Amino acid sequence: MMANRREVLIAGFGGQGIVLAGYILGKAAAVCESKEATLVQSYGPESRGGACKAEVVISEEQIDFPRASNPEAMVIMAQEAYHAYAAKRQPHCLLIIDEDLVDPNEEKPGMKLLKIPATRLAERLGRKIVANMVMLGFLTGVTGIVSPEAMREAIRTSVPRGTEDLNLKAFETGYEYAQKFVAAEVISS
Amino acid sequence: MMANRREVLIAGFGGQGIVLAGYILGKAAAVCESKEATLVQSYGPESRGGACKAEVVISEEQIDFPRASNPEAMVIMAQEAYHAYAAKRQPHCLLIIDEDLVDPNEEKPGMKLLKIPATRLAERLGRKIVANMVMLGFLTGVTGIVSPEAMREAIRTSVPRGTEDLNLKAFETGYEYAQKFVAAEVISS
Repeated sequence: MMANRREVLIAGFGGQGIVLAGYILGKAAAVCESKEATLVQSYGPESRGGACKAEVVISEEQIDFPRASNPEAMVIMAQEAYHAYAAKRQPHCLLIIDEDLVDPNEEKPGMKLLKIPATRLAERLGRKIVANMVMLGFLTGVTGIVSPEAMREAIRTSVPRGTEDLNLKAFETGYEYAQKFVAAEVISS
Repeated sequence: MMANRREVLIAGFGGQGIVLAGYILGKAAAVCESKEATLVQSYGPESRGGACKAEVVISEEQIDFPRASNPEAMVIMAQEAYHAYAAKRQPHCLLIIDEDLVDPNEEKPGMKLLKIPATRLAERLGRKIVANMVMLGFLTGVTGIVSPEAMREAIRTSVPRGTEDLNLKAFETGYEYAQKFVAAEVISS
């Protein structure tokens, strides 16, 4: 019924390219891996405060309910978004935060929490605006929700012309950063 | 329960700015009119064929189900999209088509169908890419789903810098085109 349904929530504030990140993730799954995918963008009071959220659902079959109500991963790039969504996650949900922008202030042993200085890594590449691509690389590396090849193709065909290399470099940075966690087997479900 | 829930479906093919049109409609309602709004973008087999769809839901309260399963209006900018969605509409649904791109081939008396040469009007403004804004102007004029002021503000803050005037001009063109239908009272619910 919900064959291989996978959900991801990406949240931060306006200007971080949250929705573009969600768009690219869905595109990678749908266009490059022939799955079904949906992206929900919500506006409303939260977005008026500058908060921004993208919900991506990927499935082998048609998606009737496109909300990420039980995501396997949350990518959180702002403290406000952390307060809004992280508390509602299920225990199995992997929480990925930008460690310079989000203070989880509740770290418990066994908590599925991974930290990456995504914005700082992006700044080192010259443009902090590509922190979203660093996050996508990290998400891809630690979850395998889509293949890195599909992500690269989706990035290449979605970012503004002339910025492909920078965005792909940011993706690779995040993907490589994930390898240390994968190697250390920090992520066990 | 579904206080003032309003749904719109916009569909066409890739490159027509379908999702941007949906984004702007949601933003106008949410940011400029303090309502709740969601936008769903679907990928999947249909989008691989080049088809593109945006579902916008606007409400006075939180939106749990963001699908436009019973839209009050469909804006259709491609024949393929017409075949995919128009047949599924409810009788009360207003069908808006780009008359140069879509052949409804079933016109019945009393059918809620409005035609506008949106792409042709956009071409006259110099850029057919703004046909989506012509459609937004027309939709605003005939449905009043959001105020024209909110739409103008949402357009101004959403389109690429330097293209505001062209996009706003396209919006006004569609909005004015709507007035002849409004004046003739073609649209009666």
